[in-house]
Amino acid sequence: MKNTNRREFLKNATAAAATTVAGTAAIISSTKLSAAPARATGGKYMGGFAAPKLKKIKVAIIGCGARGGTHYSHLSAFEGTEFVGICDLYEDRAERAKGKVLANGKGERHQNVKLYTGDKFAYKKMLAETKPDLVYVVTPWEWHAPMAIDVMNAGAHVCVEVPLATSLEECWKVIDTSEKTQKHCMMLENVNYGREELMYLNMCRKGIFGEILHGEAAYIHELRGQMGAVEKGRGTGSWRTHHWAKENGNLYPTHGLGPVAQYMNIGRTDDTFRRIVSFSSPARNHELYAKKKFKPESKLNQIDYSKGGDMNTSIIKTVLGRTIMVQWDESSPRPYTRHNLIQGTKGTAAGFPNRIALDYSEGEGLPDNLFKALTGGKKKHTNYHSWSQDLTAFYEEFEHPLYKRMAEVAKKHGGHGGMDAMMNFRVIECIMKGEALDQNVYEGALWSAVTPLTRKSVAEDGMPQDFPDFTRGEWKTTAPLAIVE
Amino acid sequence: MKNTNRREFLKNATAAAATTVAGTAAIISSTKLSAAPARATGGKYMGGFAAPKLKKIKVAIIGCGARGGTHYSHLSAFEGTEFVGICDLYEDRAERAKGKVLANGKGERHQNVKLYTGDKFAYKKMLAETKPDLVYVVTPWEWHAPMAIDVMNAGAHVCVEVPLATSLEECWKVIDTSEKTQKHCMMLENVNYGREELMYLNMCRKGIFGEILHGEAAYIHELRGQMGAVEKGRGTGSWRTHHWAKENGNLYPTHGLGPVAQYMNIGRTDDTFRRIVSFSSPARNHELYAKKKFKPESKLNQIDYSKGGDMNTSIIKTVLGRTIMVQWDESSPRPYTRHNLIQGTKGTAAGFPNRIALDYSEGEGLPDNLFKALTGGKKKHTNYHSWSQDLTAFYEEFEHPLYKRMAEVAKKHGGHGGMDAMMNFRVIECIMKGEALDQNVYEGALWSAVTPLTRKSVAEDGMPQDFPDFTRGEWKTTAPLAIVE
Repeated sequence: MKNTNRREFLKNATAAAATTVAGTAAIISSTKLSAAPARATGGKYMGGFAAPKLKKIKVAIIGCGARGGTHYSHLSAFEGTEFVGICDLYEDRAERAKGKVLANGKGERHQNVKLYTGDKFAYKKMLAETKPDLVYVVTPWEWHAPMAIDVMNAGAHVCVEVPLATSLEECWKVIDTSEKTQKHCMMLENVNYGREELMYLNMCRKGIFGEILHGEAAYIHELRGQMGAVEKGRGTGSWRTHHWAKENGNLYPTHGLGPVAQYMNIGRTDDTFRRIVSFSSPARNHELYAKKKFKPESKLNQIDYSKGGDMNTSIIKTVLGRTIMVQWDESSPRPYTRHNLIQGTKGTAAGFPNRIALDYSEGEGLPDNLFKALTGGKKKHTNYHSWSQDLTAFYEEFEHPLYKRMAEVAKKHGGHGGMDAMMNFRVIECIMKGEALDQNVYEGALWSAVTPLTRKSVAEDGMPQDFPDFTRGEWKTTAPLAIVE
Repeated sequence: MKNTNRREFLKNATAAAATTVAGTAAIISSTKLSAAPARATGGKYMGGFAAPKLKKIKVAIIGCGARGGTHYSHLSAFEGTEFVGICDLYEDRAERAKGKVLANGKGERHQNVKLYTGDKFAYKKMLAETKPDLVYVVTPWEWHAPMAIDVMNAGAHVCVEVPLATSLEECWKVIDTSEKTQKHCMMLENVNYGREELMYLNMCRKGIFGEILHGEAAYIHELRGQMGAVEKGRGTGSWRTHHWAKENGNLYPTHGLGPVAQYMNIGRTDDTFRRIVSFSSPARNHELYAKKKFKPESKLNQIDYSKGGDMNTSIIKTVLGRTIMVQWDESSPRPYTRHNLIQGTKGTAAGFPNRIALDYSEGEGLPDNLFKALTGGKKKHTNYHSWSQDLTAFYEEFEHPLYKRMAEVAKKHGGHGGMDAMMNFRVIECIMKGEALDQNVYEGALWSAVTPLTRKSVAEDGMPQDFPDFTRGEWKTTAPLAIVE
């Protein structure tokens, strides 16, 4: 293997990918982004923000349900943390969390952790009393933005479960607060730490797919089973079901969209979202499920589900004119997918199942060994008319260095195949080192903004909706996410 | 196998499927279709039109290129036809066609066939002199509608390659002419005769997927190799390349869309297209290909490709509120797909690869043997969280009767795996029997209208465009396509 050749090729490919799509900007007729409100007095752009280093991070968590359990388990196990507060509406959940946290701290590290329960606003007392450095917000969607704002105003960094906010107004408030308080506000998009997503990102950066023109993202995940929680009055389905019934749009866009946005350097130098169009199918699945699974007198059969939409399909158009097809469906009997498709002038990669097709039929300066790796070692010419589903050679060639470093952490701590552990590890690592977090507040807002914008597009019978420029123009000078070693 | 049980189940399922989606109409806020111009004097609706029986069909063809070859081979081989005219711009192509036609007629049946060549309007002379009963139009896109109109005005039925027309004005003119002359005008959407498409249609009609809410269609087919024809000045690529360069929208929607439209009974009783939104990616692939494959002075490097769009993504919203995602891409290095996805409240089927997921986890009255067939005989419960890719049991249960009858014809005569032969056989069969053709003129127009409407939506930065109601309201009383034995 001639390493010089490979390095040379990758350097050239990367340079080509970085300059050519941008060249298409000239042909895009409209690149106007909708006007942003002026920045609040004293606020400073948070795009590449790095806070002072911390040797030890005082951690608190709000929300100890299913998702919270993953986070407090990781955060209490990783070196460098001290749990100071645990908050949940329900005492039993908070107690269970405390047990796990103390066990992970081997009876010492987290021994002063305090519980706050029984009241929706108990978290405010926790913030005031425990003075954490970092708070995880793992609560129902409508609490994400208000809690994030309160956390930052209390002087702590905040990590917020997806989505970051549920309206454009909330997005702006969160951003304004982060800019004013100079605190990190990272949405916890764990899928950006998936092994395939990291590898595809690495391949995009190396220019392997050429100029990237199109992507596809989805959250198609049959979750009707959560509806029963309405009867219990507790658990994700107890509130999520009401969103399904009341709202019509893409209610949960970020898992599929986050990685695709990173592949395209959305909001970071190259490009950003410009507008979106959206249509939903009729809503039938929840009503049918309630009728089939629950008694007529059940609360589930008193809900009017007809205002929702079972399958939402949207198309995002970027400033460079690139397109992203985004879908959401949490109720149809259909196998899980996030699509995870990225398409360029030299090839296409997709997920569910993972597959790659590349157009290097004439080698195009690719060193022999890399060419062989690309073709899976089987053929001389890569055939982009069929997918390669055995990605072994691609992993050997393009595995993201972060995944290589953290495969053990991912395996040991798990959470959606390790992506959760890697994400949480990175949060702690970056804060301790005083480095920028992997996702900035504008990305969380931009990816989450798909929900209110699609709701509006659906309500207006498909009318295009413009994305706000949450960065106030500063995406143009914000560096792409580094390929972290 | 208790056939009574199965019949009972299928009857109930079908009845349920027919009534429930229609019930959602009440929740659709806007079902207004754009106003249609008044019908031309003397015109009559052609939705279920059947012409008088013909014992022998005098056939002529305009266009003997690659696609024409399939058609004249089939038409001259099938019983009941007599070739009277062959027309092509180029004498060599017409002569080759004549050779094949005469051979298929064994020196007798088609012995009086005449050739018309050398002039774009030679077909007019052919129509006047040979007085055909049926003419196939297999020419460049922009010739489809004008030739179809001339054929009908000359007193013959016409079958037109896809698309039927390239503008809304042309769609209306073709419809008006068909209504005025009372001649068949069928667009030759061959994919509706694919084995999987026929089976999925049969399953939709039997209610197996429940209420159908969403579909996906595409024509993603890498055809850059056709560009070389521009230098030769002859062949599909010699004109198709200019469409790619000049137009921005979904330029070739019908192959993916035709089957999905039939699954949903679009334009036939249940539902019809209402509006569409569309965005395209930038155009990069043709320029890059021309630079890579041809000399700087080649004609291919003098073309401005930047006005096109490599990947077009659109969403159709129907009167019942159902959605269809439609894509088109003829230039990206990506494996072929038509998506062919149909999604309902009881399951989902898709293509590329063919796969089915069904939600009959509790049997729901399904006879044991059918339930077993649905699960592939492997499990007690169908798992809609994963796809079944082995469709053997589905073919046994749901194979379309037309395919069963015609499998031999399909195999013997071929053409895209037999779908072409079945389509052409059906055209001849229906005309001889004096029956309605499988696709009426309104379906050809509606599916083709996606091109001008997406061009307009793209030009207007994603603005929704309303479909004309080509049937002038009569789709509501037009019977769904029969499951022909």
